[in-house]
Amino acid sequence: MSLLLRGGYVVTQNARREVLRGDVLVEDGRVAAVGQVRDSAERVIDCTNMAVLPGLINTHHHVANTLLRGAADDVPLEAMLETAFAIDARLTRRDVQMGALLGCIEMLKSGTTSFHDLFYWEDEVARGVREAGIRGFLSWVVLDEAFTTQRGSPLKNAEQFARKMKGDELVTPSVGVQGVYVASEETWAGARALADALDAGLHAHLAETRSEVYNHRKKTSLRPVEWLEKIGFLCDRLVAAHCVWVTLNEVRALGRHGVKVAHCPTSNMKLASGGVAPLPEMFEAGVTVSLGTDSPISNNGMDLFQEMKAAALLHKSTRWDASVLPAQRALDLATIDGARALRAGDRLGSIEPGKLADLAVLDLHRAHATPFNRNNLIRHLVYTCRGSDVRYALVGGRVVVDDGSVTTVDESSVVDRVQEIASELYGVNG
Amino acid sequence: MSLLLRGGYVVTQNARREVLRGDVLVEDGRVAAVGQVRDSAERVIDCTNMAVLPGLINTHHHVANTLLRGAADDVPLEAMLETAFAIDARLTRRDVQMGALLGCIEMLKSGTTSFHDLFYWEDEVARGVREAGIRGFLSWVVLDEAFTTQRGSPLKNAEQFARKMKGDELVTPSVGVQGVYVASEETWAGARALADALDAGLHAHLAETRSEVYNHRKKTSLRPVEWLEKIGFLCDRLVAAHCVWVTLNEVRALGRHGVKVAHCPTSNMKLASGGVAPLPEMFEAGVTVSLGTDSPISNNGMDLFQEMKAAALLHKSTRWDASVLPAQRALDLATIDGARALRAGDRLGSIEPGKLADLAVLDLHRAHATPFNRNNLIRHLVYTCRGSDVRYALVGGRVVVDDGSVTTVDESSVVDRVQEIASELYGVNG
Repeated sequence: MSLLLRGGYVVTQNARREVLRGDVLVEDGRVAAVGQVRDSAERVIDCTNMAVLPGLINTHHHVANTLLRGAADDVPLEAMLETAFAIDARLTRRDVQMGALLGCIEMLKSGTTSFHDLFYWEDEVARGVREAGIRGFLSWVVLDEAFTTQRGSPLKNAEQFARKMKGDELVTPSVGVQGVYVASEETWAGARALADALDAGLHAHLAETRSEVYNHRKKTSLRPVEWLEKIGFLCDRLVAAHCVWVTLNEVRALGRHGVKVAHCPTSNMKLASGGVAPLPEMFEAGVTVSLGTDSPISNNGMDLFQEMKAAALLHKSTRWDASVLPAQRALDLATIDGARALRAGDRLGSIEPGKLADLAVLDLHRAHATPFNRNNLIRHLVYTCRGSDVRYALVGGRVVVDDGSVTTVDESSVVDRVQEIASELYGVNG
Repeated sequence: MSLLLRGGYVVTQNARREVLRGDVLVEDGRVAAVGQVRDSAERVIDCTNMAVLPGLINTHHHVANTLLRGAADDVPLEAMLETAFAIDARLTRRDVQMGALLGCIEMLKSGTTSFHDLFYWEDEVARGVREAGIRGFLSWVVLDEAFTTQRGSPLKNAEQFARKMKGDELVTPSVGVQGVYVASEETWAGARALADALDAGLHAHLAETRSEVYNHRKKTSLRPVEWLEKIGFLCDRLVAAHCVWVTLNEVRALGRHGVKVAHCPTSNMKLASGGVAPLPEMFEAGVTVSLGTDSPISNNGMDLFQEMKAAALLHKSTRWDASVLPAQRALDLATIDGARALRAGDRLGSIEPGKLADLAVLDLHRAHATPFNRNNLIRHLVYTCRGSDVRYALVGGRVVVDDGSVTTVDESSVVDRVQEIASELYGVNG
């Protein structure tokens, strides 16, 4: 199957960050050519007045929690988790699958083509991923058996899931850890050993709240990042979500060990985590930073366009400097740096020949994006555009959003089904 | 003409903040009945799975600057203004009208039915307003003649505009003042006297940046709000935009004189104003606070759904308290409190019999708004929904957005025309 995206503004995100007016040729699931392409193709999509970008990459998510959207707003993390866990305990496997599918639809429609998930029952999430046709980097979460509701050993479950999924086209399995508050040194060591054995990624919550840091220091006399360094967990497989409450020394430790950070500005702000992940210092220390939306309970969406804007605004406003996190950098976080975080920088995150054809196409010919031109395009993507501008999305060359609608599943019936599940879960009827 | 919005979730924003499942009957431009309405109507719109809300109200805007969207990003206020003024100086009257029309389309499509504008050439903005069919509260800006590019006396221009527009159905004229940095005591006094004589509103920038406060103190030994109180300008006609850098004493002065505040969180964050308007203290002092998007140069859009979310996130995050500015309060700012700010609380801002039928109808039957129910609806409106969810908008009972499209003008040709104007202005061609 070949496909030609003709005559758009191609935001390559290549090393020179070129924005071209031209075509993108897709063949066999990959980008075959970029620029002035003369080849014909089995399908041609007219991209006049549209922006063609690498599909966005969400590096911290709990997609099944889409079921819990709106269940706990205007409350801090601890109260939110209490609500979430209480509902979680009543979820069936089928609920999890439907919640994940719903979230996958939302992501595709807003231009996200890859996401990094942390949850139990990732096998159910994987079903949603495959059905929707999105790319899922799925981390089965590990924690101490004393704290888990999982049947059997979380570590064994994670291993089983990872072995089952190895080689899957859309699903890349990895190993998750919930956080220092529910995982002992043995659990962290087990997760690390498993990831090493499988050559898989690691994914954990880290330094999200003051109380996490306070309690961990009380218990170990070390801050969470310091402690993870001491026990030998920090490594370049790891994507650490949040890293809000970290010292400069901890930032340097993250940089030293090649740890990647998933920055979640909306979630941190909504839960009033208080601090702000020190992105400028992370950049300085060579840390790869990417963007996560976190759970729909604490966001309450998964539109990475909004997340790029939130990140840029948060850092400008708290640093009293309008030049901090400029648009190009914000876009990098959501594309090429997201790909690097997931150890997929060679396959994803930019539009270059040979890379996977994971693409998002935005319509700019709308009042709210006018005036646009090649000069302001990157800034428009961050400050003006929104997920609902996405007209087409491709994953591995497959058109999964076509003229604004998801092609792989029937959105309306998924919405209806989730409405039913939610009304059973919450006992609310309208 | 009668119109029945049938079977939606009606977010009344009445004194009890009721959310009803039922109908809204519109007759002769006003809300005739709310609830279970048995009357038939000339047109019936099925609002199943939709939210019917009061049209949102944007209390600080410079809509003609939609032309300048993306012209100066990632720079502070001073540099942004330099760029803006340089382009402004080249604008024709027709450019201003087209810029305004473009912005009016964007507002209607995202559920904003009233806005409060500060600009010169408000007569051209008024043309855009009437053509689009939105409600415009238009403040002709006054400043010292030494600083203005207006032909003739700004104060006389403002008076002439206000007298011409008096009694207009869609346009409510008012008197603007640019700010303490370009207006002498005489200019402020003249604006106040004019507003009193016309029984019109006042609209000014106030305490936006540290340098404004610093420079004004250096000149007068008083902070801007203190100084305006001393010269007798503060009054309940005034909507003061920003009020970021105000002391608790200044907040109390605003409350004492009935001054309304237009809070512009996105603009303040993007321009790195540094401080945060102290909303909790303003509430405590009885100040009516509303929401403004400010200019598209510093936002870069005018979606009040995004602005509600930005406000809630900003205050939670800076107060380290997730319960600050809860969803209901954020929605109040954009509806009933916006109406009060514009001295139109008796006509706008809530869905109640007798009020003007300025309404926005949002489709909730979409993946990104699922699951929804009456309990989480208000929170969904703030944290989940976005302007692009608007399917219908009514202004004075007229359906100005119908099934997602503006009915009053051809959006596509306005976009094309503005693209041409912008390419002439910036000398950029694609």
